[in-house]
Amino acid sequence: MSDLPQSVQINEEGPREGFQFERGPIATARKVELIDALSETGLNHIQTVSFVNPQLVPGMADAEEIAARFERRPGVAYTGLWLNEKGLERAIACGRLDLTGSISLTASEPFPRRNQNRSLADNVAMQRSMIRLYQRHGIAVERGSIMAAFGCNFAGDTAIETVVDMVEQIVEIAEEHDIQLQVISLADTMALATPLSIKQVVGAVRERFPLLDIALHLHDTRGMGIANAYAGLEMGVGIFDSAVAGLGGCPFAAHRGAAGNVCTEDLVFMCEEMGIATGVDLERLIEAARLAEDIVGHPLPGSVKMGGSLAALRR
Amino acid sequence: MSDLPQSVQINEEGPREGFQFERGPIATARKVELIDALSETGLNHIQTVSFVNPQLVPGMADAEEIAARFERRPGVAYTGLWLNEKGLERAIACGRLDLTGSISLTASEPFPRRNQNRSLADNVAMQRSMIRLYQRHGIAVERGSIMAAFGCNFAGDTAIETVVDMVEQIVEIAEEHDIQLQVISLADTMALATPLSIKQVVGAVRERFPLLDIALHLHDTRGMGIANAYAGLEMGVGIFDSAVAGLGGCPFAAHRGAAGNVCTEDLVFMCEEMGIATGVDLERLIEAARLAEDIVGHPLPGSVKMGGSLAALRR
Repeated sequence: MSDLPQSVQINEEGPREGFQFERGPIATARKVELIDALSETGLNHIQTVSFVNPQLVPGMADAEEIAARFERRPGVAYTGLWLNEKGLERAIACGRLDLTGSISLTASEPFPRRNQNRSLADNVAMQRSMIRLYQRHGIAVERGSIMAAFGCNFAGDTAIETVVDMVEQIVEIAEEHDIQLQVISLADTMALATPLSIKQVVGAVRERFPLLDIALHLHDTRGMGIANAYAGLEMGVGIFDSAVAGLGGCPFAAHRGAAGNVCTEDLVFMCEEMGIATGVDLERLIEAARLAEDIVGHPLPGSVKMGGSLAALRR
Repeated sequence: MSDLPQSVQINEEGPREGFQFERGPIATARKVELIDALSETGLNHIQTVSFVNPQLVPGMADAEEIAARFERRPGVAYTGLWLNEKGLERAIACGRLDLTGSISLTASEPFPRRNQNRSLADNVAMQRSMIRLYQRHGIAVERGSIMAAFGCNFAGDTAIETVVDMVEQIVEIAEEHDIQLQVISLADTMALATPLSIKQVVGAVRERFPLLDIALHLHDTRGMGIANAYAGLEMGVGIFDSAVAGLGGCPFAAHRGAAGNVCTEDLVFMCEEMGIATGVDLERLIEAARLAEDIVGHPLPGSVKMGGSLAALRR
């Protein structure tokens, strides 16, 4: 019928992306409520919190408390995000998360320099020291990540060869540390990708590294998120990060510009309608999306939570 | 590089779709202002008004006045919509529109029955009488249209063979009247399509009628609009209806559910970024989209008007 994958793995990042972004304040109990609702949808990978500087990201100042309070459902991996050793140490200390390491580089010189005042060489050195910390704590490292793989607000377009070179560097860093990477994640961090560039970059990476699974992390700032996911599916990509209701940015007045991840329920709708299994109960997920909207207190961009699934029409 | 088309024809339907849908009231002068702004973007086909029952659609009660007041720019076709002979007579009488006829059937029995209390046989008879009216007034008939080609809120999924049969009927009606159709438009009237069903239906119609151009009329109620347009492009479709800012529905509280057409500036962004010429100046179109939002007085769903084009990043 088609060469689309038979199933996909969806990594839900809404709680982390959303609550670190929203102006809030949002009560810890409500953040926990959303994570618990997502646990009931069939999603098996939920990124719950980030361990970042509470002065810079006040919405995540309660990361430890959130992690302590949500209910762990068997079969679901509950993950967190950190950007440095201090964050990782906090994640380890909280003791309730499923930790895996990744090796992450940015395919743009100016972005990490502006964002974290780091050069590429600084970032490579830092990845090495993070790996030593992962290995000291017995945390598996399975994933490499390329930020800004489809372009950057500061450097413009990213050359395809730059992305392939960057994956090469990540693979070399992994091999130095006897790590066998499983997945390379390509992030459209600043939403410059189109379906065509998704196919070009995924194709180039796959050609050079045919044994690595490719994951896509897509933002929807220019409305291309679902189309880009479809282009990924057509290239055989089977792992996607997404955010319930499109949490993680808001295309409305207070936050003009950057939008969140591609919306989980819209992605699940597309996949399931095309016969690609997600393991997710769309109706429950739509309820969780509506809950997310209630929690943040303003409209969120996802469409299927308003348009509805097709299950009712077929009954 | 790819088999995507080199250029596309975009039919802007925002003024008609939007102003007939919005609760308003919106001043005629502001409706005219949007049409005039769209005339400056490079769009060469703008659907301005619909001639429908003003009791049922109060937002279009001023159709004649709008048509009398917008400025006609050379090279731009200004069109209107009608659903019956009375509407067509009003369109002819106003004397300022570029009129072309179409033969339109719905690939669902219950939809026209509920909507207009007509059976398929009634609709076929009505198309014949409309054609006689077109021919009497020297109005060219070049397009056939299939409503609900990808499914229906009342009948569920539409079988692909039903769509092909319906195109067959339209072609036969055309031939009876010595009409050589150029274009067959497939409308996802109620937004059930996915990229896969777009490919399946377009493929089946193209296989049976290889000499007809295919146009897509897509709604974005479930967030699939741009992905569906991309799937169409991959099938060689080169004609799209769309609405600036995603006018024609509103995914917010007052109008939960149905959303408008696929957003013109998001479609133009995708095409131009993939090297497909649209003839449209994206920056001017984004200004028109922001004007549309100002005119209706609430957020509209298009993304690129918030996320911005990439021209500034590349400078």
